[in-house]
Amino acid sequence: MVEIDINCDMGESFGNWKMGRDDEVMPYITSANVAGGFHAGDPHVMRETVELATEHGVGVGIHPGLPDKMGFGRRTMDATPEEVRDYVVYQLGALMGFAARHDLEVQHVKPHGAMYSMLSESADHARAVMESVLEVDPELVYLATDMNIYEVAEEFDDLRAVFEGYVDLDYNPDRSLIVEKQVEPKDPDLVADRFVSIATEGEVEAVNGEVIDVPAESICIHGDGPNAVELLETIHERADEHSIDLVGLDELA
Amino acid sequence: MVEIDINCDMGESFGNWKMGRDDEVMPYITSANVAGGFHAGDPHVMRETVELATEHGVGVGIHPGLPDKMGFGRRTMDATPEEVRDYVVYQLGALMGFAARHDLEVQHVKPHGAMYSMLSESADHARAVMESVLEVDPELVYLATDMNIYEVAEEFDDLRAVFEGYVDLDYNPDRSLIVEKQVEPKDPDLVADRFVSIATEGEVEAVNGEVIDVPAESICIHGDGPNAVELLETIHERADEHSIDLVGLDELA
Amino acid sequence: MVEIDINCDMGESFGNWKMGRDDEVMPYITSANVAGGFHAGDPHVMRETVELATEHGVGVGIHPGLPDKMGFGRRTMDATPEEVRDYVVYQLGALMGFAARHDLEVQHVKPHGAMYSMLSESADHARAVMESVLEVDPELVYLATDMNIYEVAEEFDDLRAVFEGYVDLDYNPDRSLIVEKQVEPKDPDLVADRFVSIATEGEVEAVNGEVIDVPAESICIHGDGPNAVELLETIHERADEHSIDLVGLDELA
Amino acid sequence: MVEIDINCDMGESFGNWKMGRDDEVMPYITSANVAGGFHAGDPHVMRETVELATEHGVGVGIHPGLPDKMGFGRRTMDATPEEVRDYVVYQLGALMGFAARHDLEVQHVKPHGAMYSMLSESADHARAVMESVLEVDPELVYLATDMNIYEVAEEFDDLRAVFEGYVDLDYNPDRSLIVEKQVEPKDPDLVADRFVSIATEGEVEAVNGEVIDVPAESICIHGDGPNAVELLETIHERADEHSIDLVGLDELA
Repeated sequence: MVEIDINCDMGESFGNWKMGRDDEVMPYITSANVAGGFHAGDPHVMRETVELATEHGVGVGIHPGLPDKMGFGRRTMDATPEEVRDYVVYQLGALMGFAARHDLEVQHVKPHGAMYSMLSESADHARAVMESVLEVDPELVYLATDMNIYEVAEEFDDLRAVFEGYVDLDYNPDRSLIVEKQVEPKDPDLVADRFVSIATEGEVEAVNGEVIDVPAESICIHGDGPNAVELLETIHERADEHSIDLVGLDELA
Repeated sequence: MVEIDINCDMGESFGNWKMGRDDEVMPYITSANVAGGFHAGDPHVMRETVELATEHGVGVGIHPGLPDKMGFGRRTMDATPEEVRDYVVYQLGALMGFAARHDLEVQHVKPHGAMYSMLSESADHARAVMESVLEVDPELVYLATDMNIYEVAEEFDDLRAVFEGYVDLDYNPDRSLIVEKQVEPKDPDLVADRFVSIATEGEVEAVNGEVIDVPAESICIHGDGPNAVELLETIHERADEHSIDLVGLDELA
Repeated sequence: MVEIDINCDMGESFGNWKMGRDDEVMPYITSANVAGGFHAGDPHVMRETVELATEHGVGVGIHPGLPDKMGFGRRTMDATPEEVRDYVVYQLGALMGFAARHDLEVQHVKPHGAMYSMLSESADHARAVMESVLEVDPELVYLATDMNIYEVAEEFDDLRAVFEGYVDLDYNPDRSLIVEKQVEPKDPDLVADRFVSIATEGEVEAVNGEVIDVPAESICIHGDGPNAVELLETIHERADEHSIDLVGLDELA
Repeated sequence: MVEIDINCDMGESFGNWKMGRDDEVMPYITSANVAGGFHAGDPHVMRETVELATEHGVGVGIHPGLPDKMGFGRRTMDATPEEVRDYVVYQLGALMGFAARHDLEVQHVKPHGAMYSMLSESADHARAVMESVLEVDPELVYLATDMNIYEVAEEFDDLRAVFEGYVDLDYNPDRSLIVEKQVEPKDPDLVADRFVSIATEGEVEAVNGEVIDVPAESICIHGDGPNAVELLETIHERADEHSIDLVGLDELA
């Protein structure tokens, strides 16, 4: 049976400022990437997000960001590998605290925004983070957003790395993603087709019609997309039709 | 054999700003209260502090503060029990992350400054924090700075609470402490006498000459005092002479 | 001719997090209370808010908050009069910077949330703030949200203080306001009646039917109310019918 | 008569964390670069620094930094010209607030650390900042730390730009500075020789013995150097002997 995980960024509200539709999206996903309080989120939002994930049996992972709330963690900064590693350990630990209240282990690590870009561009940064992830808990899954990072993760014998694909964004033939300025509603059938294609074939049609490899065991969905819930419902239906099992990262075979 | 713990606030530097003499003091203590990044400390300082404690076999505990770096966590704020609880869980978890890198468990929890005052004045706040401490890890020791808090801790059957005493500050007859504006060097013999008296008799002479009960299993030392290292050396000598065993909070019988 | 100002809190977005409908509301008001980056707002939001106000000929004032973004400046804290004063001067100055880019003077000062409450409860705090407002610029108008504060402001011969009234909240007979947990749409006619009554008679009907004095020269509107724009349109129509002139705080006779 | 300014970074304490020896250094300088609360400083520190400068008749300028207190503003970040400009206007304005309490104008602008590097490497960033400086107050002096920035400043007809030299650091022949990891005490005579040479000849001996042009009208001193006060005393003596007049940036002919 084919298995795949659906992950989504969650807990990106901050104080009185709301962002995303976590309540509506959580029932449809299997892994939640929880903001750690640096680029978004705060202790109250983290607690609520872990409670919501627990209610729905969704695995929680840390979605650590750079310490730049004003820039939403989207601006790279000249931080050393050790500095970035410490930011990850801090935010990962904070989530471990909230998870422990529910006797849960944190399931995975997926860096956010500019931190992700820095790890993708500097193997030294990526290695420093991955070493610390292994030190903190060798059961943690590292969710790799691109091949640069996935390949560094593969250097570590003990590190469980999972590659993720995207179904609500278009791929270029080189497997880079086309990020929109203004997020438009997506065609649920197109998105669900991609989902099935990635889950069952490990490939997807790029924007130019070429079929490319996307060897993903997890699909990332943008929970703040205008019709995210509709997309997720359609994905669930199609998963059912194609006997694709939706499982958390820690249950993948 | 008499046993007692010596605890000290550690890791209160922030970024480029140094505070305290952690390197000099760490060899003499058995428990380090590590600032959690809210009133003081940051991810790099926390990592270094945990490394230093590990080197010296010192138990680490979280010293959580209110989110008020500008006020060093010394200003009470109108935060709910749930809000304070979330601040504690977040900072406790963050320390768990750094401790896990060394296969260590966090040993204890001791709230800082105005957070401590708020828990002392509101049993609801204290209970919310203590419940969450138990939820996160029932092995954690709660280090109680005054009797109000100690009594709330005693309500919880499962919570290990330890009362702490002070030897480098004078006590009023009602067991409140006389806090100085300007910290002066202390007489090492007076401080060591108090240490022995608390450790062996559970009592100390108050500022008016009256002998009062201080049923402490841990002694708090101010590591930033002008002659803190001299005081600690004298305490160690006297502990030796009186066969008082210096042990971490988690080793107390 | 009767004159009155309409003020509204503006610029309470932060980074990627949006709050309020400043674009829609700005055309209808005469004074904008601009968040200063402590409880809400940031340098980019402040710049945009000043640009928007300038476009519509709206006077800008600082809406300073406590340094507590996580709590949106709604939690009192144990800060001294001098500390609160310094927070006001800092945020007021920051707004002066953005205003100076347009050759504008900052028009007024209106403390936000818990800072307002602290000034209302402690005349020492209120005086410290008002003294510094006079020192920074004696032309500044102090917008007083309640009578406690208004009376302290009246102690200062040189300080221009203006009392504000509310039309989208109900008054108790003692002139305190009934704040709702969940903000509901308001009846435009009721709100406009109150507006006319305050503007022309300086009085309004309290929730028990009693008519009370509200000697306000400015009306505060909640720009994030669900039908704020509708309310403002109706107010403008009625102002027109009753020959009530809508003018900024610095143009009040 | 030869005139020169002596500038020094000031107000880099934060909350309870002290940095520098502002009290000792202020009597010897003519221009204080006041941290604006982003990389260092806070509203209380700014107020005190302005009060101290006023007492000693020292001109105050803003020393704006990137919003990165943990990194002391020393890490470049991928911020746009507009973002950096808004950070400068905000911090400049804040200082205007404190200066206005003493009926003072802010005298100058000198970006700190990584913000300075970003302006030096990107003329677009430098221009955005300089345009806004002119908009806020055309009397402001822009204190240029290197030739890249000085040349951009020279593009603006109305902008008063002053180039600064260093006397407590060694120059490379290409006029770049040799920054030490560990700051050592400096030879007062060597430093004072350089001071005289820059002030009177506009040149200094580089580390290889070559004499290079340093057309500076201001000298920057590191106030946290281990013998900063001794250096300043010697500079004052030599200024006296050579009839070099020490004047603030706004008094330079």
